[in-house]
Amino acid sequence: MARSVLVTGCSRGIGLELVRQLAASPRPPLHIFATCRHPQRPGGKPIRAILHFAFSLADTVNLPSIQGAVQAVGYHLKDQGLNLLINNAGISSHATLHSLDSQEMLDVFATNVVGPLQVVKEFLPLLEQAAKGTGKEGLSCSRASVINISTKLGSIGLCPRVPEAPMYPYRASKAAQNMVTRCLAAELQDKGILCCAIHPGWVKTDMGTEQALLTVEHSVRGILTVLASLSQESSGAFLDWEGNSLPW
Amino acid sequence: MARSVLVTGCSRGIGLELVRQLAASPRPPLHIFATCRHPQRPGGKPIRAILHFAFSLADTVNLPSIQGAVQAVGYHLKDQGLNLLINNAGISSHATLHSLDSQEMLDVFATNVVGPLQVVKEFLPLLEQAAKGTGKEGLSCSRASVINISTKLGSIGLCPRVPEAPMYPYRASKAAQNMVTRCLAAELQDKGILCCAIHPGWVKTDMGTEQALLTVEHSVRGILTVLASLSQESSGAFLDWEGNSLPW
Repeated sequence: MARSVLVTGCSRGIGLELVRQLAASPRPPLHIFATCRHPQRPGGKPIRAILHFAFSLADTVNLPSIQGAVQAVGYHLKDQGLNLLINNAGISSHATLHSLDSQEMLDVFATNVVGPLQVVKEFLPLLEQAAKGTGKEGLSCSRASVINISTKLGSIGLCPRVPEAPMYPYRASKAAQNMVTRCLAAELQDKGILCCAIHPGWVKTDMGTEQALLTVEHSVRGILTVLASLSQESSGAFLDWEGNSLPW
Repeated sequence: MARSVLVTGCSRGIGLELVRQLAASPRPPLHIFATCRHPQRPGGKPIRAILHFAFSLADTVNLPSIQGAVQAVGYHLKDQGLNLLINNAGISSHATLHSLDSQEMLDVFATNVVGPLQVVKEFLPLLEQAAKGTGKEGLSCSRASVINISTKLGSIGLCPRVPEAPMYPYRASKAAQNMVTRCLAAELQDKGILCCAIHPGWVKTDMGTEQALLTVEHSVRGILTVLASLSQESSGAFLDWEGNSLPW
């Protein structure tokens, strides 16, 4: 797997489990960086029990907080660069057309689209360093990659067949994030950086609720298996936790 | 065609030409409502030369300005409702990953996604009134419909094949808008309201620049022909100005 991994949104749910399984794997990454908004709060404790490096990304739209994390991560990595950036942080929103609030919708875009893209922009020098430094050809998560945690609810094509809730802000933000993934894939593949969107399934987390079908352990085990299998052909793909391709 | 039409973003370009061709058609709508941000400015003059009704939608995210327009439109329509709402207002952005600015990206989402959705939400009672009042079955623009002016640049599937510029904020906002169109289509079809996204082509406007392939007259003639042909099957479709289907 990758020598170094950074995961955002690690105080709970899929982010925390990603970090837990990465740290517990037979050949763990040398560096695992877990970020969350409030590492000091109770939810932040489990990360620090696993790792030495847990940074605050107080707000992924807050440029100084991202730049601070880049500096700290760069310091630990020395000149090796960052291999794998997992943009997992995100928020849900159950707003219907009826209950829609403009400011809430903008907040969802800020957290789910603008923030993760800003994170990629700021970490790009470290990703480029990794892409050049590994001596590897082609695209892979062990060389340099950006994985955006997406959702089937962000599939425009599946929208009428996944009617659950209207959830306008969440769905629109995730479709926008998928476009960002695709633009990044097109722009960064020549630099040796793989970009890809992953749907983790409907998972029993605070966001997915207890009614969800998958345990977080099961979903994350799947995601990590998929990540290990990604290659040149996966650039710009939209895959689920089992590696199945999803329509945009 | 529709008895009443409202078009946003009419100070120039496609919006102004839509209003011009609608007013000049052999059987023009009884009511054409043109909105733009600043009807008092020079750009607003041509609309008022064509129409009696040109409202300010000072800011499509500004709820009081939308609600004011709904009141004024409702007053003119009496109890007939609004048949056709064309969300044309939008802004472009040429930001690349390198030049990306968080606030600019949020402004693009506000204008291209949140605002138009807010407009639909507020005009919904008038659209529902039209859907009930026409005595028509099925879905059509002459009964009740929302047309969102989209773009091929908002197609996630075509992204690697339409590489022009990275344009992250614009593309992401238009993918988000397409998702909104699709959610609206699913939610509103049972109320007799058709929702659909239209790509006007690459048009010689301030946004499209002089290098564009189509004149605004040609594009708008195509769009109006397509709108007249829309039916039940077009609910949630993504069509270009010639009626061809585009991938999400």
